[in-house]
Amino acid sequence: MGHSIKEIAAALGAEALGAADLEVSGLAEPGRAGPGDLALAMSPKYADALTEGSARAAVISEGMDWQALGLEAAIIAPRPRFAMAGLTSALDSGPAIAAGIHPSAVIDPSAEIGPDAAIGPLVVIGPGAKVGSKARIAAQVTIAEEAVIGADALIHSGVRIGARVRIGDRVVIQPGAVIGGDGFSFVTEEVSTVEAARATLGKAEAPQAPQSWHRIHSLGAVEIGDDVEIGANTTIDRGTVANTVIGDGTKIDNQVHIGHNCRVGEDCLLCGQIGLAGSVVLGDRVVMGGQSGVSDNLTIGDDVVITGAAVVLSNVAAGRIVMGYPAVKMDTNVEMYKALRRLPRVMKTIDQLQKAVFKRPQND
Amino acid sequence: MGHSIKEIAAALGAEALGAADLEVSGLAEPGRAGPGDLALAMSPKYADALTEGSARAAVISEGMDWQALGLEAAIIAPRPRFAMAGLTSALDSGPAIAAGIHPSAVIDPSAEIGPDAAIGPLVVIGPGAKVGSKARIAAQVTIAEEAVIGADALIHSGVRIGARVRIGDRVVIQPGAVIGGDGFSFVTEEVSTVEAARATLGKAEAPQAPQSWHRIHSLGAVEIGDDVEIGANTTIDRGTVANTVIGDGTKIDNQVHIGHNCRVGEDCLLCGQIGLAGSVVLGDRVVMGGQSGVSDNLTIGDDVVITGAAVVLSNVAAGRIVMGYPAVKMDTNVEMYKALRRLPRVMKTIDQLQKAVFKRPQND
Amino acid sequence: MGHSIKEIAAALGAEALGAADLEVSGLAEPGRAGPGDLALAMSPKYADALTEGSARAAVISEGMDWQALGLEAAIIAPRPRFAMAGLTSALDSGPAIAAGIHPSAVIDPSAEIGPDAAIGPLVVIGPGAKVGSKARIAAQVTIAEEAVIGADALIHSGVRIGARVRIGDRVVIQPGAVIGGDGFSFVTEEVSTVEAARATLGKAEAPQAPQSWHRIHSLGAVEIGDDVEIGANTTIDRGTVANTVIGDGTKIDNQVHIGHNCRVGEDCLLCGQIGLAGSVVLGDRVVMGGQSGVSDNLTIGDDVVITGAAVVLSNVAAGRIVMGYPAVKMDTNVEMYKALRRLPRVMKTIDQLQKAVFKRPQND
Repeated sequence: MGHSIKEIAAALGAEALGAADLEVSGLAEPGRAGPGDLALAMSPKYADALTEGSARAAVISEGMDWQALGLEAAIIAPRPRFAMAGLTSALDSGPAIAAGIHPSAVIDPSAEIGPDAAIGPLVVIGPGAKVGSKARIAAQVTIAEEAVIGADALIHSGVRIGARVRIGDRVVIQPGAVIGGDGFSFVTEEVSTVEAARATLGKAEAPQAPQSWHRIHSLGAVEIGDDVEIGANTTIDRGTVANTVIGDGTKIDNQVHIGHNCRVGEDCLLCGQIGLAGSVVLGDRVVMGGQSGVSDNLTIGDDVVITGAAVVLSNVAAGRIVMGYPAVKMDTNVEMYKALRRLPRVMKTIDQLQKAVFKRPQND
Repeated sequence: MGHSIKEIAAALGAEALGAADLEVSGLAEPGRAGPGDLALAMSPKYADALTEGSARAAVISEGMDWQALGLEAAIIAPRPRFAMAGLTSALDSGPAIAAGIHPSAVIDPSAEIGPDAAIGPLVVIGPGAKVGSKARIAAQVTIAEEAVIGADALIHSGVRIGARVRIGDRVVIQPGAVIGGDGFSFVTEEVSTVEAARATLGKAEAPQAPQSWHRIHSLGAVEIGDDVEIGANTTIDRGTVANTVIGDGTKIDNQVHIGHNCRVGEDCLLCGQIGLAGSVVLGDRVVMGGQSGVSDNLTIGDDVVITGAAVVLSNVAAGRIVMGYPAVKMDTNVEMYKALRRLPRVMKTIDQLQKAVFKRPQND
Repeated sequence: MGHSIKEIAAALGAEALGAADLEVSGLAEPGRAGPGDLALAMSPKYADALTEGSARAAVISEGMDWQALGLEAAIIAPRPRFAMAGLTSALDSGPAIAAGIHPSAVIDPSAEIGPDAAIGPLVVIGPGAKVGSKARIAAQVTIAEEAVIGADALIHSGVRIGARVRIGDRVVIQPGAVIGGDGFSFVTEEVSTVEAARATLGKAEAPQAPQSWHRIHSLGAVEIGDDVEIGANTTIDRGTVANTVIGDGTKIDNQVHIGHNCRVGEDCLLCGQIGLAGSVVLGDRVVMGGQSGVSDNLTIGDDVVITGAAVVLSNVAAGRIVMGYPAVKMDTNVEMYKALRRLPRVMKTIDQLQKAVFKRPQND
């Protein structure tokens, strides 16, 4: 499990200093590092902590003096956060999913399992499903009829893949995610309360005759591009007629809800607990902070940033940064909020003005 | 798998025009439709797209001229969205759950499985549980002791049904939902920080002596009415003494959280990621938008609409439409928001007034 | 299953009055209680309901006259809510998990199962994992390699425990929770749109050159203290280098998301659907209302109360009660909100002042 400083530096495309043959077996914070650890000290503020721990080697930033820090070896990381990707990847041994097909797995004879795929205990794979080469499927996963899993995919325990869903190559899905549930699409025989409320912006509050909801079935599936990651217990619903689509390279955190018919672009970053209602279109490289949401049928342009907990109720043009409930341009939101913070004191000023000008107290 | 235009129109109670014996095998958007598809063109704006695709038949709205659109057959849908319910239902073949009981299922000898029920691979059914006739239970579902599943229910993969939970007829539950977890109900031996904060509206911030939380166990169960749908990874907790109840015909989306002791009425529509805290009572036909929430012990009247992301902190009378955080009547919320949008500019006006009247700048 | 009034009172450390040998087998609301139930009538308002039901015994509060209420026996509960913890605990028979190891469980030969542990059907336990004595593991749970489960823990169905996760003694985990998914930590090779937006507070909206995201792997695990409870479908991600930590006695509700590297203190109470972004530090006894959230890398002091749906965007000092989006001290939030409620009417006053002082209408 040991890696030399030289090897790690080479994997990072970074510079190795000092005893480049020194071997390390793990990463550690500077103050907790043992002699076999590579300490993460990419900021001058860690100098003291390094002396508290017993690291012999560390990753440092440009301009830091490894010898003065008492190190025997060091790796210079020009962009420390990016270096973490390479470092952690080099040292991650991955989940233990034994090679081959576990005898307890229940695999339909018509399913196709690619070469070198690993199928864990108690996995269920349905008729006509295909699992790509070198894909790893952890315990208790279900893959329904005619679903397709790409090469080198990693599907963690308890994930549910619905019928006809297509998962790209190198996709990673965390435990408990559900890809391909039915869309939440119901209709009443006559115009419903909520349709009336939307049409009149809330004016018509007259009670309606009681009606039941009828399901619009989801005949489409879900299409997940290559290099996508999907978080634990996230749910992505199938489309009504066309497929729900997640573009290549998009990363989705835990407990995200993506409604039916959504089309998410490439290289987006969707943080925890965000929700996209039905038929939302997201451009490429959209970043959404945790707990934010987008109302149904809206279009969000490329490179938009939606801050945490923002609630988007209208289309957003490419490149915008939006914030608030309802979400508006970030500087507009900040300006409104600053005014609101002043408002309680300004209310007193208005009272005084009213007295001075109208010779009477404000009566609202 | 083919259906004639005549058959489909009859299933919808709609009018068939032209070559009513023409067979179609699927639905498609007009521009993508092949010659075997029924195109969905319920708006005049789809006229051009129809010529791009190669549909021979389409569903159109009243007043559209099917012959001018180059179609051989057409179905007239007076309420297009409602027609989608019938169309998609007719063409949905449903999940592949083989008839009978899969040999890998672990079923307690005291459980009762109704006639023609289908039990998938690796399902676990506990002592005294009952599964209704023609119910379909997908792979990896667990049904705990003495739970009851109604006739014609469809329980998707990985759903967890707790002890003594009762599920009505024709209920559909999407993958990963948990029905009957323990309620989140904890109490400290002495009055806690949060009880003090509620009682004093935040005035008393004195630190408390450290205390631990003691669980109030959930002795009740969950009762789900007939024709209910429950979304993927939704959780519904059991009641403390009485049952948590979901009324007939209510539809619940993904990742919804319904706390212990809640009583949800009939034909409600609860969108994605909403949360009901403990002991909330919802009337009939309540509609809640995505990510909205209701605080504990509140009562929401019949036909209330709660807009997306609204946070309800007080009771809501029947028929109201509420919005915002905290949620208030929609027009009140809109009025407040409009005033807030103007506020940054109005602040300048107030400064000018203050200078003019008091001959001094505002000093806050 | 019967318990005498005397026994129950002794278990509660409470006073028994009247026929203390009377046996009851369950709890009930006063109006629904049968003769074998112990009615919950801890408030004088239940006097009428008691006569509608047929309870012979009840739990009442100090000062209520059990004989005038027509009871044969009563238990006096000085703090009724706390009494519920003892009452429900005494009458809860718990989930049916048969003793021993179910033959369908798939347990690696190198795993260690403690004495008197109960392992349910179709459980998967990986290499080197340890399950403590008397722990109960329900159906379909997966416990990955080298994970450790404490003594007397109760892990409900379908829970996923990741590699090297450590779970303390007496921990309860509700169905579908995922402990130890990979953290949501991605980085671009060059500075990304969102980093630029944070650095400039939204000023720089220039489009960036398209970039892909690289994963920072999670080499740490999750450490759950003793006496913790974790709700259904909650997710707790593993740390990057150090572990994500949940302190002893903390209670977590359903669908809570706790990001990588978070450190949650002891005896906290985290209600449904809250989210903690990465690297958040929570002190002891922090209480967070439903749907609230904390942005990444923030520190929340001991005894803080965060109200439902509040969005915390900055550090919070110990003992504070915060509310709103963004969250501020509760009284500040209430003051701002009251001013906002008055604002639409005050806008008219300002118009009048402007006309009176400047002899012209407001032109914004």
